[in-house]
Amino acid sequence: MIATPLTHRFTQPLTLQSGAQLPGYDLVYETYGQLNAQRSNAVLICHALNASHHVAGVYLDEQGQPKPRSEGWWDNMIGPGKPLDTDRFFVIGVNNLGSCFGSTGPTHIHPDTGQAWGADFPVVTVEDWVNAQARLLDALGIQQLAAVMGGSLGGMQTLSWTLQYPERVRHAVVVASAPNLTAENIAFNEVARRAIVTDPDFHGGHYLRHGAIPRRGLRIARMIGHITYLSDDVMNEKFGRQLKPLAQAVGEAADAGDLPALNRLAYQYTTQDVEFQIESYLRHQGDKFSEYFDANTYLLVTRALDYFDPARQHGGDLARALAPATADFLVISFSTDWRFSPARSREIVRALLKNRRNVSYAEIDAPHGHDAFLLDDDRYMAAVRAYFERTVRTQGVAA
Amino acid sequence: MIATPLTHRFTQPLTLQSGAQLPGYDLVYETYGQLNAQRSNAVLICHALNASHHVAGVYLDEQGQPKPRSEGWWDNMIGPGKPLDTDRFFVIGVNNLGSCFGSTGPTHIHPDTGQAWGADFPVVTVEDWVNAQARLLDALGIQQLAAVMGGSLGGMQTLSWTLQYPERVRHAVVVASAPNLTAENIAFNEVARRAIVTDPDFHGGHYLRHGAIPRRGLRIARMIGHITYLSDDVMNEKFGRQLKPLAQAVGEAADAGDLPALNRLAYQYTTQDVEFQIESYLRHQGDKFSEYFDANTYLLVTRALDYFDPARQHGGDLARALAPATADFLVISFSTDWRFSPARSREIVRALLKNRRNVSYAEIDAPHGHDAFLLDDDRYMAAVRAYFERTVRTQGVAA
Repeated sequence: MIATPLTHRFTQPLTLQSGAQLPGYDLVYETYGQLNAQRSNAVLICHALNASHHVAGVYLDEQGQPKPRSEGWWDNMIGPGKPLDTDRFFVIGVNNLGSCFGSTGPTHIHPDTGQAWGADFPVVTVEDWVNAQARLLDALGIQQLAAVMGGSLGGMQTLSWTLQYPERVRHAVVVASAPNLTAENIAFNEVARRAIVTDPDFHGGHYLRHGAIPRRGLRIARMIGHITYLSDDVMNEKFGRQLKPLAQAVGEAADAGDLPALNRLAYQYTTQDVEFQIESYLRHQGDKFSEYFDANTYLLVTRALDYFDPARQHGGDLARALAPATADFLVISFSTDWRFSPARSREIVRALLKNRRNVSYAEIDAPHGHDAFLLDDDRYMAAVRAYFERTVRTQGVAA
Repeated sequence: MIATPLTHRFTQPLTLQSGAQLPGYDLVYETYGQLNAQRSNAVLICHALNASHHVAGVYLDEQGQPKPRSEGWWDNMIGPGKPLDTDRFFVIGVNNLGSCFGSTGPTHIHPDTGQAWGADFPVVTVEDWVNAQARLLDALGIQQLAAVMGGSLGGMQTLSWTLQYPERVRHAVVVASAPNLTAENIAFNEVARRAIVTDPDFHGGHYLRHGAIPRRGLRIARMIGHITYLSDDVMNEKFGRQLKPLAQAVGEAADAGDLPALNRLAYQYTTQDVEFQIESYLRHQGDKFSEYFDANTYLLVTRALDYFDPARQHGGDLARALAPATADFLVISFSTDWRFSPARSREIVRALLKNRRNVSYAEIDAPHGHDAFLLDDDRYMAAVRAYFERTVRTQGVAA
């Protein structure tokens, strides 16, 4: 499946939850499959922290050949014959406001100043993203979605859709998500933000004007994030206490006949260099991330996570907060996800059941932690496939 | 109980596990209670990451009055009539090599260069610390300890004592510890170290020569550490999603008659300023820590944690590794400690039982996470008290 990013320019300003106004802006999106004649088979995919509109399919290079490793981030889930089957559904991936992947964000030019928005880009919330997505659907002539679907922060947008536009959502698929962040989650976000903001290259968020990029901070932020996306078990299985240069060092010591070195089992006794495999892996992840991700976007997206809390206006009563939702729900969690634990998904399920909503819930026993929502797991894929197939059968959605 | 730090100067070099030699060095220590005539009632306390020799008692100011908040870090555990009763036992707190609290470390002057050791201070391991502590006992004329006791990294030293000097330890009290760090724990240490090492004020570890201190990195390191010392539950209970300046902001909005602001429930919509209480708390912890802790010490101490792994030389077989230990053991863990989980303590217990050692094990159902080992808990304190009382009864230790 070939993917082609499209851009829609909105000329009407968008009033944000903070009270600020965003003037004309772009949203970048992709679509997969065909919208049916009744315009009833559209599924909107909401993305999480560092993802984008490129949900499925591959890009072509200039020779018309598929670019290697250009698959969308949920390509295992979405495509012809896949759990969310693009032979039946018209799937839309949209990049959120504030991103660094195409939609208007802090790296774009502020219309009034002619300079990059940087730290002046307004704070955007999950609710703001949903409002912007709804305008895109208006532009595409789609009144009602067959489903909204997302994992993690994308699950929060999905939940918010059912509250902000209940009549426009028939089904909501909320994966590895939560009704709000715990203090611990906010704490991890805050440390990551502090690493970025206190990087001398941050310049109060106007680093582009200074020709700088706060790469140190971004690296630390990503390393922290990465630890929390994996389970302790999967980290032990993948890396354990393996030393990075063990083979090489042991080889050298053996060549040199250096028995004491062999006895020390290739510990290098270093505080600043890589010793363990896990360190090498994390540094690599941090380095990669700091090359492509925007620091202000990181601040904005983590804040959107922090702020999301639909029960807040209802004195913490999630059931009251979810009362407006009329969609049917599929909620999925993963047993080893300690960032968005199954207990948090069950809170959503209980609150929906209190409102006598139609809810399916799958708790997948998977070892991969929060990252599981992006990975292949037969039971996970089967649960999503079955849900969408039932939708087709009972609601007659046809391509 | 009044505490007085003492210094012992060692003129003989110490050969370290890495093969490096540390020339003459100081160890700072404190003692509480009286050594009995048989020299049989000494208990050595090993400290964890950011603690010191100041285990119990208070310091006096220049007027001879107790200094406020000068209690030792385990003052709730150790003192007259306390679980480790200084009316019966002679308790020794000793500051480890590489520390920034008095014993020779990276902030001290290198004898050959006349400059601070900085990054040239050799890597020290748990085993090295134990060797240095053993020399201090030699100097104090103590051949055998009634007990060694420590929590977290201090528990690792305790375990190592029973392996390096089995004949010198009658009892080992290992609290909230582990036979080695998991990949996740190493990962958290590594992110903290990267924050320090990549701080432009670090200067490769020779910041003192540059008149600089890598405070940004230390702050981030401490914030990360702090999150992992607390449980998710206790963080939610203490901070939850409370906003920092809620009262003030609501008051101001009400004064100004600004209803939309009140409706926004005092969210400030900021990415760089404090919004939630937990953020304020973490920043405060980071700021405080960066004022008193040395960055190179932080690297050394986290590396000592990473490297400790007695089973490593035995192909990962912990039971074989612990075979030399002849001490009786009390092992204690805390249910919500996810940094040194009960499962890790149980590994120690099982390995000791395989060797038919005498082991008592208490798994305390406490909400506070890893920090629980420093806090008051009736069952925890009672377990330690009962253990030491039994020691007195069965082994006739007298003051």
